[in-house]
Amino acid sequence: MCELMGMSANVPTDAEFSFTGLIERGGGSDIHRDGWGIAFYRGRGVQEFRDPQPGVESDIARLVKRSGIKSTLLISHIRRANIGGVSVENTHPFVRELWGNYWTFAHNGQLRGAKKNLHLGRFKPVGSTDSEHVFCWLLDRIAVAFATRPKSAKTLWRLIDELTREARVFGVFNFLMSDSQHLYAHCSTRLHWLTRQAPFGSARLKDLEMSVDFSQHTSDSDVVTIIATDPLTSNEHWHRMESGQIAIWKNGRRQSF
Amino acid sequence: MCELMGMSANVPTDAEFSFTGLIERGGGSDIHRDGWGIAFYRGRGVQEFRDPQPGVESDIARLVKRSGIKSTLLISHIRRANIGGVSVENTHPFVRELWGNYWTFAHNGQLRGAKKNLHLGRFKPVGSTDSEHVFCWLLDRIAVAFATRPKSAKTLWRLIDELTREARVFGVFNFLMSDSQHLYAHCSTRLHWLTRQAPFGSARLKDLEMSVDFSQHTSDSDVVTIIATDPLTSNEHWHRMESGQIAIWKNGRRQSF
Repeated sequence: MCELMGMSANVPTDAEFSFTGLIERGGGSDIHRDGWGIAFYRGRGVQEFRDPQPGVESDIARLVKRSGIKSTLLISHIRRANIGGVSVENTHPFVRELWGNYWTFAHNGQLRGAKKNLHLGRFKPVGSTDSEHVFCWLLDRIAVAFATRPKSAKTLWRLIDELTREARVFGVFNFLMSDSQHLYAHCSTRLHWLTRQAPFGSARLKDLEMSVDFSQHTSDSDVVTIIATDPLTSNEHWHRMESGQIAIWKNGRRQSF
Repeated sequence: MCELMGMSANVPTDAEFSFTGLIERGGGSDIHRDGWGIAFYRGRGVQEFRDPQPGVESDIARLVKRSGIKSTLLISHIRRANIGGVSVENTHPFVRELWGNYWTFAHNGQLRGAKKNLHLGRFKPVGSTDSEHVFCWLLDRIAVAFATRPKSAKTLWRLIDELTREARVFGVFNFLMSDSQHLYAHCSTRLHWLTRQAPFGSARLKDLEMSVDFSQHTSDSDVVTIIATDPLTSNEHWHRMESGQIAIWKNGRRQSF
């Protein structure tokens, strides 16, 4: 399987702490050795880093940790391959453009029969994972439904919810996705989240000796939500998502839907 | 303006030497300070690095130099902004997927009126450059003409040649593009290339003190072509492309067309 990590914030935020916790599971504290990737939204663009090497052995991952890149939205993934070999083209997150926005997608799980049953349109997978296939299928269905971004975000959310229900019958479908404005999370089996806001406290990573006092790095109006397969810290309260639940964040805040 | 660099090779090749020469012009030996990017084709995938910072000041560029990443095809770009602000979304190379292949594109020049006159279809620019606009237009016209990759590569090349003629009336259109198999180069004003093959010799960068003896790093069957806006080395013979010329390489070898 794999692990997911995402962030939605109302101010450009350095994700070094959470990324460090996640990447340690890429061959250090856990077995997700088959590559990793991260996509930072910056302005309208996406700055991505990916490597088919284990996260804990990756020079690129070390650079990302100390890069100081700040973002309001990111998706990251560490991989343990099941469907599709270990290669650049099979590293998540996958990226496509729709409506002049970059969409990104990372998946944890297996969808048996999805390749055969979910028929593709204009978006085609480059690699051989079930994950990229389902992402292309989702985007095609969205593109067919809406030639441009719908004025009402909820109209889009309802379609994504419907499509998610259609795809999840094929198996385990924990995913993070972004349309460049919202962060979408769907839980089949395992996904947790927490929102940090004032008063900020200290947090301690679960996977290695590292703590941070967020009150030193934030202002009172900051809102930062982290989503992860398993809680990344040991002294904070993480919410466990329910199976079948879809959640949406914008600027760090949960959207009612 | 900007500068371009590309490589096509018949064996995965480390481009540290050429990339080092190019990136020095990103604020060191020259003025192209407004960001840079590089896309390495690895297998069917693309590993990309981009940064809106000047190349000579970029930690990410330093990492790319010493990364040892080997590729048979790459496109790189250092930017001096004219149309479109300095931002991640305006850094080249741009990437899109068509036919299950990643296409990449980098441009040097200005195309005045292209945004108004070249109408877009399914591919939309995310940033505000004329370059990304033209790339999206090219891909849309190719996608409309061929639902899947044509069996004859020359059929595709002829269309790309026609479209290039159509777009270049708007101004200076030096570009590098790849469909993941071929490297396309079009020269309006300035583009040079050379092919290195046995017997390999030594090369010396023009922009900083660095030499390499390729005979120590190659085998007799290696063929490596480098394309660059201006020659990167001072002791080798670079071919200057003619204005209006399009050239295509595959596995390091020029394709007759």
